[in-house]
Amino acid sequence: MNAVADRSGLVEEIVTAIRATVGSGPVGLHEPYFAGNEWAYLKECLDSTFVSSVGAFVDRFECDIAAYTGAKHAIAVANGTAALQVALQLAGVRAGDEVLVPALTFVATSNAVAYCGAVPHFVDSEERTLGINSVALREYLNSSTEMSAGVCVNRQTGRAIRAVVPMHVFGHPLDIDGLLGVARDFRLVVVEDAAESLGSSYHGRHTGTFGLLGTLSFNGNKTITTGGGGAILTDDRRLARHAKHLTTTAKLKHRWEFGHDELGYNYRLPNLNAALGCAQLEQLPRLLDAKRRLFERYSAAFAPIAEVRLMAEPDGSRSNYWLQTLILAPAVAGVRDSVLAATNDAGLMTRPVWNLNHRLPMFKASPRMPLAIAESLEKRVINIPSSAQLVLETRQ
Amino acid sequence: MNAVADRSGLVEEIVTAIRATVGSGPVGLHEPYFAGNEWAYLKECLDSTFVSSVGAFVDRFECDIAAYTGAKHAIAVANGTAALQVALQLAGVRAGDEVLVPALTFVATSNAVAYCGAVPHFVDSEERTLGINSVALREYLNSSTEMSAGVCVNRQTGRAIRAVVPMHVFGHPLDIDGLLGVARDFRLVVVEDAAESLGSSYHGRHTGTFGLLGTLSFNGNKTITTGGGGAILTDDRRLARHAKHLTTTAKLKHRWEFGHDELGYNYRLPNLNAALGCAQLEQLPRLLDAKRRLFERYSAAFAPIAEVRLMAEPDGSRSNYWLQTLILAPAVAGVRDSVLAATNDAGLMTRPVWNLNHRLPMFKASPRMPLAIAESLEKRVINIPSSAQLVLETRQ
Repeated sequence: MNAVADRSGLVEEIVTAIRATVGSGPVGLHEPYFAGNEWAYLKECLDSTFVSSVGAFVDRFECDIAAYTGAKHAIAVANGTAALQVALQLAGVRAGDEVLVPALTFVATSNAVAYCGAVPHFVDSEERTLGINSVALREYLNSSTEMSAGVCVNRQTGRAIRAVVPMHVFGHPLDIDGLLGVARDFRLVVVEDAAESLGSSYHGRHTGTFGLLGTLSFNGNKTITTGGGGAILTDDRRLARHAKHLTTTAKLKHRWEFGHDELGYNYRLPNLNAALGCAQLEQLPRLLDAKRRLFERYSAAFAPIAEVRLMAEPDGSRSNYWLQTLILAPAVAGVRDSVLAATNDAGLMTRPVWNLNHRLPMFKASPRMPLAIAESLEKRVINIPSSAQLVLETRQ
Repeated sequence: MNAVADRSGLVEEIVTAIRATVGSGPVGLHEPYFAGNEWAYLKECLDSTFVSSVGAFVDRFECDIAAYTGAKHAIAVANGTAALQVALQLAGVRAGDEVLVPALTFVATSNAVAYCGAVPHFVDSEERTLGINSVALREYLNSSTEMSAGVCVNRQTGRAIRAVVPMHVFGHPLDIDGLLGVARDFRLVVVEDAAESLGSSYHGRHTGTFGLLGTLSFNGNKTITTGGGGAILTDDRRLARHAKHLTTTAKLKHRWEFGHDELGYNYRLPNLNAALGCAQLEQLPRLLDAKRRLFERYSAAFAPIAEVRLMAEPDGSRSNYWLQTLILAPAVAGVRDSVLAATNDAGLMTRPVWNLNHRLPMFKASPRMPLAIAESLEKRVINIPSSAQLVLETRQ
């Protein structure tokens, strides 16, 4: 009974540390914050009547995103999943291929692979960044694949492994150098899923700009939002043009004719949503600063609790601190659900990490490497309230 | 040279008739009109901070759409193409199936079939409604298919023909009774593409509610717009629930867990776009009335031009008159491009009908019935300026 008693104490300590940081009242996990030109730009967009697939805001949003991230080109699309689907297609992923994706990710990463008719091949994580474990991945690929005519082939399935999709979990950049090394040695195209990491950089360079293509999300729960939205990043001009083409029904330019030269998508970000995005992007530095200060406040509050690690940005990286993250020590993993229940009961919205994708029914037959670290993390990760306004608006 | 001279005269007469109807200045083909609660609802949405996949407006928009169309259920999604893709999937369309679609349609109809891994099988149109020619389709299916275990099978390809997608061209309801008869006799599921026909009814019943499922679009060029958006209509409660599930990443309800039980999509209409939609839907009766009056004005202007038919709503139907449509007599089909050039040069935006889908490169290998009428119409159809504000705002 002593162990159980200790654990109950831990739950209380965690609730108290969060409450001390965020103040009173009900607190969401991550809420949008509109304190800039959001109204003004939406009104301007409405008054222009250009609310749909064409307009000044969507062009500007693409320029602003490219300028902010340092990508040469940004293509604005309906959401992060659509961005990833099209990026994978542009990376050469075809039906019957395999694509390496972390088991520890939001389901959209794996879904996008499936939309291409390809098969997600699940990869383990590392404890430090929660991202793909490049060291373990290299060992695994060495033992389970062979190169055939310049293509990495899964020896067990005989399928080509065409690409790898590193995902920067909760905004924390993973070990990009390690990942790029593996990709180079096994001839894998890198498509970076930076859905959660707008504002995060690795050795001074923005996430999403290391792969041949990268993708962003502006869903309502992200650091900035367009309602629903996403973007494709690339430095390759030809790929950028093709991305724009594919996401606008592959329509050929003509004064009046409706020619379409390949199977395209209705994925353009509406100008209305882009208007919100332009205003939100102006606020991003301020939001990032607030989220960093929130991390510092949580750091102080959680410092005395030995069994809990508050996730900090990895060395050499700058994180956007999108979602603040507690990682329980393995010995106290059993209290996770008690912490989730106690915090949510107290009006503090928290959540566990996603169910590992290889256990979802539609991906049960997908190949995977040993996933020991991801499986351990799944039992120990808890996201806690992370909105910028917890710092920007005093709540006591 | 006489024939050419006659044709030039015709072009001038057409330009003059349009100009007399729409007044001076540059005139677009179809522009959104925001004169109601659009700004109030957008502001309310922004102030609520619920701009993304959850919120009061998206729920209300679904209720309003269901009430307006008479469908028991409406599911709001990111666009009409997404609506059709998911509706086809719910109708049982699977990879390797064939789906009957008109050759004369916007590319999205055929694309949605392809997204399911199925093959569009192209069908001819009728001169009167521009929609699927049910009489010719029946003859064709009688001669080229056979029933096998209750499934209509294409004798040539051996593939199952699972569904038929009637599309109500430019808002004019097609011969629904005839189509439903063919579908019944050949055991085809009907998925109605009502992307263009919000506000159009057939024998008093709203288009999109005759099939097992129907779909709408609220793109910027449609009668009402949400920026980008669409909806799935159905009377089947189980299908409606499944549609909502599939379009919200197939996430299972749980207090905090991220379970997904099948391959879903990130297709939910953002609350921000739904806010615009709620306001637009309030304006719909007024817009429809204006568009009908615009038709009457064009009717008067085009009455003296014998070689041109201004498309009127088919008998037994009420059309939304989404796009006003000229159909040139076959003898003067050759002037189409001259009319397009002269009108666009004069600041009057016009356009031809879509390139027939069976000639687009990605569908070149798709099966098709003889398409004589569609091929004739393709050379003779011209859409002319159709915005409601041409009537609602005096422009002289």
